[in-house]
Order: sequence, then C-alpha cells, then structure tokens
Amino acid sequence: MIGYGFMGAAHSVGWRQAPRMFDLPVDVEMAVVVGRNADAVATAARRWGWAESASDWREVIARDDIDIVDIVTPGDSHAEIAIAALQAGKHVLVEKPLANTVAEAEAMADAAAAADDGVRAMVGFTYRRVPAVTLLRDLIAAGKVGRVQEVRASYRQDWLVDPETPLAWRLQKEHAGSGALGDIGAHIIDMTQFVTGQSVAAVSGTVETIVTQRPLLGAGSGLSGTAAEGYGEVTVDDVALFTGRLDGGALVSFEATRFATGRKNALAIEVSGDKGALRFELEDLNTLQFYDRTAPAELQGFTRILVTESAHPYVAAWWPAGHVLGYEHGFVHQAKDLVEAIAGGTAPHPSFAEGLAVQRVLDAVEQSAADDSRWVRIEAHQPASA
Amino acid sequence: MIGYGFMGAAHSVGWRQAPRMFDLPVDVEMAVVVGRNADAVATAARRWGWAESASDWREVIARDDIDIVDIVTPGDSHAEIAIAALQAGKHVLVEKPLANTVAEAEAMADAAAAADDGVRAMVGFTYRRVPAVTLLRDLIAAGKVGRVQEVRASYRQDWLVDPETPLAWRLQKEHAGSGALGDIGAHIIDMTQFVTGQSVAAVSGTVETIVTQRPLLGAGSGLSGTAAEGYGEVTVDDVALFTGRLDGGALVSFEATRFATGRKNALAIEVSGDKGALRFELEDLNTLQFYDRTAPAELQGFTRILVTESAHPYVAAWWPAGHVLGYEHGFVHQAKDLVEAIAGGTAPHPSFAEGLAVQRVLDAVEQSAADDSRWVRIEAHQPASA
Amino acid sequence: MIGYGFMGAAHSVGWRQAPRMFDLPVDVEMAVVVGRNADAVATAARRWGWAESASDWREVIARDDIDIVDIVTPGDSHAEIAIAALQAGKHVLVEKPLANTVAEAEAMADAAAAADDGVRAMVGFTYRRVPAVTLLRDLIAAGKVGRVQEVRASYRQDWLVDPETPLAWRLQKEHAGSGALGDIGAHIIDMTQFVTGQSVAAVSGTVETIVTQRPLLGAGSGLSGTAAEGYGEVTVDDVALFTGRLDGGALVSFEATRFATGRKNALAIEVSGDKGALRFELEDLNTLQFYDRTAPAELQGFTRILVTESAHPYVAAWWPAGHVLGYEHGFVHQAKDLVEAIAGGTAPHPSFAEGLAVQRVLDAVEQSAADDSRWVRIEAHQPASA
Amino acid sequence: MIGYGFMGAAHSVGWRQAPRMFDLPVDVEMAVVVGRNADAVATAARRWGWAESASDWREVIARDDIDIVDIVTPGDSHAEIAIAALQAGKHVLVEKPLANTVAEAEAMADAAAAADDGVRAMVGFTYRRVPAVTLLRDLIAAGKVGRVQEVRASYRQDWLVDPETPLAWRLQKEHAGSGALGDIGAHIIDMTQFVTGQSVAAVSGTVETIVTQRPLLGAGSGLSGTAAEGYGEVTVDDVALFTGRLDGGALVSFEATRFATGRKNALAIEVSGDKGALRFELEDLNTLQFYDRTAPAELQGFTRILVTESAHPYVAAWWPAGHVLGYEHGFVHQAKDLVEAIAGGTAPHPSFAEGLAVQRVLDAVEQSAADDSRWVRIEAHQPASA
Repeated sequence: MIGYGFMGAAHSVGWRQAPRMFDLPVDVEMAVVVGRNADAVATAARRWGWAESASDWREVIARDDIDIVDIVTPGDSHAEIAIAALQAGKHVLVEKPLANTVAEAEAMADAAAAADDGVRAMVGFTYRRVPAVTLLRDLIAAGKVGRVQEVRASYRQDWLVDPETPLAWRLQKEHAGSGALGDIGAHIIDMTQFVTGQSVAAVSGTVETIVTQRPLLGAGSGLSGTAAEGYGEVTVDDVALFTGRLDGGALVSFEATRFATGRKNALAIEVSGDKGALRFELEDLNTLQFYDRTAPAELQGFTRILVTESAHPYVAAWWPAGHVLGYEHGFVHQAKDLVEAIAGGTAPHPSFAEGLAVQRVLDAVEQSAADDSRWVRIEAHQPASA
Repeated sequence: MIGYGFMGAAHSVGWRQAPRMFDLPVDVEMAVVVGRNADAVATAARRWGWAESASDWREVIARDDIDIVDIVTPGDSHAEIAIAALQAGKHVLVEKPLANTVAEAEAMADAAAAADDGVRAMVGFTYRRVPAVTLLRDLIAAGKVGRVQEVRASYRQDWLVDPETPLAWRLQKEHAGSGALGDIGAHIIDMTQFVTGQSVAAVSGTVETIVTQRPLLGAGSGLSGTAAEGYGEVTVDDVALFTGRLDGGALVSFEATRFATGRKNALAIEVSGDKGALRFELEDLNTLQFYDRTAPAELQGFTRILVTESAHPYVAAWWPAGHVLGYEHGFVHQAKDLVEAIAGGTAPHPSFAEGLAVQRVLDAVEQSAADDSRWVRIEAHQPASA
Repeated sequence: MIGYGFMGAAHSVGWRQAPRMFDLPVDVEMAVVVGRNADAVATAARRWGWAESASDWREVIARDDIDIVDIVTPGDSHAEIAIAALQAGKHVLVEKPLANTVAEAEAMADAAAAADDGVRAMVGFTYRRVPAVTLLRDLIAAGKVGRVQEVRASYRQDWLVDPETPLAWRLQKEHAGSGALGDIGAHIIDMTQFVTGQSVAAVSGTVETIVTQRPLLGAGSGLSGTAAEGYGEVTVDDVALFTGRLDGGALVSFEATRFATGRKNALAIEVSGDKGALRFELEDLNTLQFYDRTAPAELQGFTRILVTESAHPYVAAWWPAGHVLGYEHGFVHQAKDLVEAIAGGTAPHPSFAEGLAVQRVLDAVEQSAADDSRWVRIEAHQPASA
Repeated sequence: MIGYGFMGAAHSVGWRQAPRMFDLPVDVEMAVVVGRNADAVATAARRWGWAESASDWREVIARDDIDIVDIVTPGDSHAEIAIAALQAGKHVLVEKPLANTVAEAEAMADAAAAADDGVRAMVGFTYRRVPAVTLLRDLIAAGKVGRVQEVRASYRQDWLVDPETPLAWRLQKEHAGSGALGDIGAHIIDMTQFVTGQSVAAVSGTVETIVTQRPLLGAGSGLSGTAAEGYGEVTVDDVALFTGRLDGGALVSFEATRFATGRKNALAIEVSGDKGALRFELEDLNTLQFYDRTAPAELQGFTRILVTESAHPYVAAWWPAGHVLGYEHGFVHQAKDLVEAIAGGTAPHPSFAEGLAVQRVLDAVEQSAADDSRWVRIEAHQPASA
C-alpha cells in the first residue's frame, strides 16, 4: 500500500477483514506500507498490521513478493505510481479519483489496457459496494424502475462552513485537482453511471469558491490539521452544481458541496423511471427506498428496505438481519472482489476506463463553468491501443 | 350542539365543512349552540357560525326543528343529556369517552337500543375517520396482515410534564372520570378494537399519578388556563400502562401518558400479523406504514403510503395527491358519515355499544391496577332489552 | 370569486373558515362566484356556500356590494380581470402565478401601483402561510442561520409519469404559460425570495418535455379529466432544472418536475448559512427542521420542530399542540391576512411586484434554456409610474 | 475464546480490530479458539485468525500463556467455564446473558468478587458501547433530561413469525434459559439500568409462546439452520411484555418480542425526564434523538444527532463525521475497554454483579407471569463474601 493517510486506515481494514469475513480463494498478506516519512509510516505499519514499512515505492513495486499495489496517496501522484506498477506486472487498486487530470487518467487507462493478460486495474469507488447501492444497481438492471427518466444525485458536507478550517492539501489545486467537484462530485458521477448503466454525455455547470482565503495549515494534515499563522488562497471549488444528460436521454441534477450546514456525509441518489423509483442516502447506509408504480394504487409508497438480509448483496457474510453495517464495509467488499477477480481471471469494476470516464465529466463541468455554463459534450475515450 | 369548549370548535368545523366538501343527501343547518354562560355561548355561536345560542339544553332538545344533538360537554354530563335527547327522538352524537362510568355508559347503550327506529346514536371517536386509520382497518379486513398476532398501541403527550400546569377539569376525577387512561387511553382501546375487528377480552395494568398537587385553575379553562394561588390534589392518573388480550388471542401493549416529554399528540398503533404489519402515527397523520411479508425477500420493508390518493378513504372529496389533511378533517368525515347514515337508514359507527365496550376496558384497567395488576376479564354487556 | 376549478374549492375554504377560526376585524360575506358555464357555476355556488353565481365577471366587478375580487382562473386571464378590478377600486387576490408573461405581470404590477389609496393587491402564493414556512422566514430574519450561503429548492410531483395522462390546460402553453416551471417552479422561486428576503439576480437553466404527445382531454378537466380519442402536442415543459444566484451572493439549486416517480407534492427547501440551516418539506407540512451550528458540538443535529405550538405563527387559532394542520389552512391564513390588511390599512404580501419578480425569474429561465443554458441576469422592474 | 458460533465471529472482529483502530496500552494476540468439534473449530480458527484451535476448554484455561478467556457458548455452560477461568486467575469476558438462572449468576458474581486482585470479569452487553448509547448515558448523567419520569424500552424482531422456522437451541429452555425475554429482553433491562444509573426494583409481566410446535432442527444451527422431519415443542417464550419500576420511582414499559413482523433488530429506548428526553434505536445505530425542554418554545423538537463526530464516545478512532459505524463496532469497543481496564487496573463494566442484576429481573418477570402478573420485587444480591 502506497500512502498512509485516512484512506490508508480504511484500505487496511479492507485487507484485514476481507479474508476473515469472506471465504476467499487465496490468502491475503498485508506485506508493506510505503510513505516518505520513515517514522510515521513505520508507526502506521505497526498500528494497522502491515508486516513492513518502506519509503521508496519504486523499490517495493520491483519486489517479486508483491502482487497487488494499493495506491492511497493524493491524486497528483496516482498516474506515475499506477503506471509503473502495471508495467511491473502488479495488480493495481487506486483510490478515487483516478487522477487529477484527464491526460493522466488517459495515460492510466492506456496502461491498464496495455498491461499483461491477467493484470488487473481497479479504481476505489467503494460506495458501489455498499450493499444498498449494489442492490439499487441490480434492481434497475432487473427493470424495477423501468426506463430511467430523471436522476438526482447530491453529495453534501459541511466541513468548510467554518472559515477558520485551515488550508489542507484538499483545498490546493496542485494536489487535489479540484475541490468538492473532484472529491465528492466524482462519487456521484460514478454512482450515477454505475447504477443506471449509462454514461453522462453532456453537462452544464457552475462551480464556486465561497471562502477564498483560509489559515495556513500548521501541525497535522487533512481534516484534523490545526491552523498556523497567516492565510493562503483556496484554489479549488467549494461547491459544484451541474446538470447532466445521460446517453439514454434522462436529465440528472448533480450537487456537490462542502457548505451544506448540518450535512456531514450526505450522499443521496434518486433514480426515477416510468415503473418506479429508487433512493439511497449514505448517512442511512443500510437502507434503500423503493417505489413501485406497478403496485395497487392504494398501497403505493416508498418502501424502506433494510438491506441487512442474507438475500442482499454481500450481507450473508456478516450478521443476522437488522444488524447494520458501516462505512468501512465497502472497503472489505472491495478487497474481496478484487482478490476474487484476480483469482478468477475476471476484470473487476470499476475499471480505469470507468475512472477515466468520471474524470472526463469532471473536466467537462469545469469547462462549462468557465464558459458561462454552456453545455459541454463528453466524448468517449479512444484507447491508445486502438 | 351542547357545550362549546375546544371540542365545540372542532365539531363546528365538522358541521360547517361536511356539506361544502361532500355531496350530502340532505342539507345541514347549524341551529343552536348551548352553554350555561349566556354571554360566552353567544360569542361562540357568532364566532363558529351557529344561528342561535341558548342556555337550557332541555328546552333545545324539546324543539321540533332540532334533528341532531351533538354533545361536547365534559364526560360527567354525557349520560343525562344523551338519554334525554334519545328519548326525545333526536339523533345523538356524543364526544368520547361515552361516559365517565360503566353504569352511565350502560344506561346510554340501553337508551340507544331502546330508541325509536331510525334514531341514531354515535360516539365521537373521530380518529377512526382519519383516512389512514380507515385504510388500516380496511387492509386488515382484506387480510393484508393475515392473522393478528401482536398489537402495540400508545398515546403519548407531554402537557403535564410541567408541574405548574394548573388543575383543569381534566385532572379532576368527578368531571373527567379518569386521566390519561380515559382521555387518551380510550382512543387507543377503541382504535385497537376498530381496526382489528376484535374485542379486548382481558387486561392487566398499572396507573399512576406522577405530580399529585397542582396549582388551582384561575382564569381560562382547559389546557390554556392560567394558575391561581394555592394547590389542589390531582385525582386522576397521569400514566396508564396495560397489557390486553384480544378475543382472537393476540396480546396488546397499551400505553397512555401525559408525561412523554417531547411527544405532543403521539398516538401510534402497530398491528403485526403472520402476513404483514401496519403502523399508523397520528402526528404523521397522512401516512400509513405497511409491511408485506409476502413480497420478495430482498424487497421487503415498511412502505410509507401517503394516504392522499383519490383511491383512499374520504380523500377524493378533498385535494390532489400529496396535499395533506389535518386534525379537523376527522370531524368533517364524522359529520358526513352521521348525516349519510341518518338519511340512508343505516347505523353509524361507533355505536354506543362500542363506546360502552371501551368504557368496560377502562374500568377493568382500573380494577386491575387496584389489585396488584392481576388480570381482569371483560364481560360482554347484556343489553337491558335482552 | 372568478373561476371555480380546484383552486376555487380551496379559496372557498379560506373565505369560509377564516372568520370562524380567527377573530377578524370585519365580517366576510361570500357573495358571488363567477364562471362561463351557468349551470356548473351555480352548482359550485351551492356546494361551496356562495350566495350567488354569475357568468359575466365584468358585471360583478361593477357591483357596489363587492369589495374583494378573488381570481382563480387559468393564468391567461389574470391580467385582464385583475386590472379591471383594480381600476374599479376593488381589492384583488390573484392565484399564482401572477400572469403567464412578464408583459402581463408588469401591467398588473403597474395597475396595482396606480390603484387608489387603500386598494390592495395580493398574489396567492399560499405556501408562505404554512406555519412552518412563516416560522422558517422568521428564524432567518432573526439571524438563526447567519449569512445565507446556499439554498436548495425543489418541487417534485409525478402526475405526468403516466404517458396516458391527458392533455389538460396545464399542458398547453397558451393557457398555462409554462409547465412545471410556471406552475410549481414559481412556488419555489417565491418561497426562496420570501424566506431569504433576497432576490434571484441571475439564472442558468434547462427545461425539457419528456412526453411530447398526450391523449386529448375528453370529459372532465384538470388532473381528473379522462382521455378522448387522438393525441395532441404538449407545449410546455415537464421538468425545469436551474441554478440561481441571489443578490446576496448565494447559489440556489432549483428543480421543478412532474416526473419524480413517487413524489406527489414534494416541495422542499433547505437554506444553509454560516450559523445554521433550516429545511421544510411540504408533504410533512407541520414540521420544520433546524440545525444550530452554535450548539455544543456533541448535541448538534437537525431538530424536528412540530410546528403546532401556540407560540408558532397562526397556530393559536387552531388546535392544541400536536394536532396537525393541512393543505387548505394556508388559504384560511391568506384570507385572514388579506382581510386584516384591508381593515388595518397595510399592504399585504406577496404584492403584485413580488409576483412580477417571480415572473421575471421564470422568463429568465426560459431565455437561458433557449440559449444553451447561459446565465441570464434579472433586471429589477421600473414601475411605469416612476 | 470458548465457542465459535455467530457470537464467536463478532467477538473475533472485536479482538482483531481493537488493537488496529485504537492505541492500546498492550498488544493483543488471538491465541486459541475452543470447541467440541475439532474440524469445525479448526476451520473457525483459520477463518477468523486465531493462532490455534483446541477442543478441551479446561486445558486451555490451564495454560500460562492465556490471559483472557472469552466465553461465547450458549448460556447453560457460562457458569462452569467462567468460574473455572476466574479461579485459574484469568480475566473473563462472558457473552450476555450472564447465565441461564439466578443461582448460576450468583455463583458467578461470587466467583468474580472472590477472584484475585486485578482479575477482571465483564459481561458482554455490547450495546452499551454503541457510541450513541454511551452518549445517551453521558447526557442523562449530565442532567440533560432532568429527573427520569418514564422509560420505554422495546426490542422487537420477527424471525419467528414464520411457523416453519426450526427449533434451534435458542428455543429450548435447557440451553437458552428463556426466549425473547432472556435473549433480547436482557438487553433492554441492562440498557435501562445502564443509561439511567438506576435499578429495576419491581416488575409485573406476561410472557407467551405464540407458536408452540416447530420443525426439528436438521443441518446447521442457530438462525440459519434448516428443518428436519418431525416437530418438537418450543419451551421458551416468544414475547414478554412487562412493566417495571426503577428504584428512583419511574415506571418503565418493556417489550421483547420475536413476532413483530417487519422489525429485524429493533431495539428502542426512550427516556423522558422533566427537562428533556432521549431516544435511541438500534436499527438507526448512528443517531441519537434529544429533546430539550429548556430550549425556546418555538424551537423545541427532537434533535437527530448523528453520532459520528470526534466529540462523541469512541468515534475519534474511526472515520470523519458522517461516516457511519455498524453492529460489530460495539465488540471492538468492548475489547478495547477490557484491555484498557486490565492494563490500567480498573474494573470494567458491566460487572458480573450487573449481569446478575439483569438475571434477577428476568427471573422476577417469569415469577410475575406465573402469578397472574402480580408485581414481584427484586431484592439486591448480598455477595457471598459479605
């Protein structure tokens, strides 16, 4: 695993728990965690149960005893590491977003396409593997909502409402690529494409930075850092509002914001079709709402499905009905699915091509926002190998 | 209409709105409202749209131009007025509870049974006529929950949590009969019997007065009165917890309380059967929750039915789907149903016999509470005419 | 009252109930209802309690015994009737939207400005008078959310999801002006401006007609009509998605749709500020959600206020705490406020100028939608009298 | 760890995750798991990450390299194993309920009291360690609800609604002690005592077996077993309804049932005091509802606290705000707290004495149920050593 921030903790739980809760075809060893600060990464290794720590990711990638490279660094380093790992014949898991730019993402998708047979590349949109989200996708695929006519997708947080929240790397364009758009907007773009099985074909959008100067970051990092003296410029967006059109014709309203006071991790998606509707909210992670327009008129309503039955995706490996799962279970399911795909010789999703597709939508939103919100079409990627 | 307190306002809305919103077979005239304080009742008449006011109910009952007598006085006067009215050949509507004692209620039920053909007697358990409650009853009758195996019924308010709330007539046994038990417990007993179509056959219960001394009532009356100097004894219960058994065998948990901090008018009933379950909450009056155990396993959940469709009981006369109804609509439906029953020559529900059945359960709870919570059986009433 | 469709029923309840539930300074007489079909309007008069019916609105407006003209016809006739009524010195209430075009709305606003002293003009955005909405406005005005930073407003229905719903007047541009945009979009624009006290200064939007051909309307009208043979073209939008910017700087996401499967009358608004947030949903009409960022960290959360306390706007006239109100209560409050404004010599809100402001936003959305979603600025109206 | 059923999986997660997510003072090694079926327990050891498996618990308890004995067997074997382990100087964690009978529980409490200094004994009421429950307790202790006046506690499941669910050990008195009462009723008794800091002093109750004959258990065990031919008698209760009185005077309504159709793991507790109220529901595990009667009247309501802030108990070790936890996190917190208590020389809760107190209440409910629901007082235990 390259990187050891907050995402490193979550990925570690995934690797630790997957072989204990699921019956995997091969065993998993947590070999080495890599980071620039030798002391800090050694501490992380001990704490999270990795056998070793190291500070040079190139050396680790070159090792014969490493099969999977899991990349959880900030987005600006994803392309270099992932391409090198793929070229070294390693399976690669990259935390989302795939990259900070379309160019990087294209290079990564090309590298994945060019990799040796059986070498797998996967992007970490783990919310796909929340059981309720997988169920949502399955029900749409089974025709339960009919033809998709509208989608509403939003991801709302409030951790930037406080103007004294310091200037972490996520607020700097050179490290994060973009702000709410790339961090949380990427999730709802991917989820929309995943659950509908359609692509976002065009967008019109607006992005905005509400608080433009923030205290410099002192001690710590990320969300929990403390402020130092002086102020610096926020170079990414705080809010992104955009409208998309799916290739099947439906309109989608997207909203990504870090200024929705009182909303902590409020991803919500609602898909409306001519036969029914489905709704998921991440803060109520164990439930899925389903409206069946084909039910008798006097009985129609949104059914709140508690997605904790053994009939539901992934759930049979866990607890009895009504015993809820949490945020990190998506990482366990991600590790399980990647290991099974590798062992089974199949391609795991989301692929790098899917990660690139998200990146293209993000890019199109920024283009539209810079052009008075005019609509921007998203072209499909032609792989370099074609 | 005899009486002009809070309930008078609600009944007046019923009589005023029913002929305007529904297509009634006969017209309704709001003739006269009766109360002891001539000035106050005259004001009420003007305000609520009654043609006249009067202070002697016996005179009014004797009038030829009066067809329906609507009794909204405190419970200790129900029996005398209702029996006189029935004997005078008037149709009678009595606000719940039917009476303060079983003896009074029996006399009233006997009077109703002995009344002339076509003279109708009805008790004002208006919550039966909330569309969601009528739907709940209909769905049980249609077998949607299968065999009833458990019922949970509670009615929780908090207006007595403040120990300085003054000693209104509802807190005095001689006027109110009992406290939370008779006032709000009566509602959940009636609703349980109504929706299940079964009778409570036995009970074991506990009643309690939490605040035993309260300020004497000064100006005003009822819930909005202000305190005078001095304290008096609360002679009714604040809380009643009891377990019942339906004649079909199912256990019922009942809870009536005026000390549920934060709960304002929180009547809730949940009926669990071997095929499904139904749940209603009065503070969320326009919805009904339905769980269908016969649905596919992965789709089961409580469906929140917004009971505002024209397919739902009473709703077609009101607004389009999603335009919600409120508390007083039950009184409009009550007026409509009574007028239609009179005109159509049918017996309206709830009958005085049903009101008496509730009274018997209330009495049995008090007996049980006075006997270390031992179970008390409720015998069916043998009408005097039998 | 001119017109007698669904809105006529609702306005009639307003006039009927206001003097009965509130202590008005003057009495209200429901004099005459006007419609082209003499039989139908006579039936409506009888049913709803109007003293007379008539078929020529000009004659009625000319009568000396008429003080208030209440206009509930389709939008294309609002301007002509309202202007004539104002010129005749009558107080005017016009159901929303004020008009179908900006030009008509401007003429109406000018007529209201030019009317004799003390002649009042009001637009029927009744949702302002839902107690929870009035409370929401009051709390923002009191600084409870601090500086408004984001607004989310949506109004979602599903009555057009069925492609066989017939082509009612609301789906024809010549009568309705626009579709979801003007009908329900108008509500969320007005509500946003009302509760924030700010104006929408610019918009970027998209409108769309999802089902373009519908069965011709046979018997009946409006939502409850039945289909005839043959199909006609839908000439208004089904969905409108737009982003607005308030003059105070905040972004607003707007969504108006009749294709949100399972949503019946789902107006929702959430206002996020630097000190807190407020949220209202019309299908849960008696509650308001408040998030207080100034509360202790471990106790922060959305507080669900049941807006049924006597301390809440309008509520003291109705029932005890927890006894909920419904859709038509807004019409009662509207009638009360208009009568009190007339009697008290004050200007009621929303004024025609406010109605015009909504119309300008609607117009700007259509302009933007026709211009590849580019932003369109909304200029303030310069009254003709200036 | 002795035992390896469903609870073994959950306890294993606790031991595996605690040292990885929390900064423990000593390291934890998962040494040996013990079960009668050597093959099955070996599989469990491999799967769950225990270093060894064994089939004789006495041998394992005798080993010097074992510090903590974690007992997750059915209740009938708890006493023997726990007493032996304590006498061998091992720290003991016993899954709830402490035992099947009061006599066994007393012996265990006595053994814990008689154990060597520093030897710790703890009962596995893990729900105490759901962050929202710990917060609930803390807020009551801080006076946020004032004087406790009422408690409502229910635990409702529906896995026995299907009459063909086979006769697992949990339905047999000799293994399970009692049914819904001892299994899930025990949780709400403990939680009530934990959060209020008071003891249940008396109870009046009813227990019932709704389905008295069930298919014999074939393959598998527990909830997931399949039926064999033939039927056997259910010897435990399906439902327990009881009323309790706390030693501080407040009444408590308790309901434990496995026949609440549609309810999967619906533990709920609501504590009402003269200053406020608190409510927790296990199926919505990450939230706590708080009503503050001291807030301004127009702002009062239940605040839904999303208990995922770093200011909340246990949460800082996990994820950012809004990233929810699940069922097994309570087991992680339990392992952490036990290890910290052992290392820090303090007594962990709940103690065996607290487990015994629950057992006494369970026993009193059964006595009351057998005696026509008369009230039964619960005497405090006099430790043998006293």
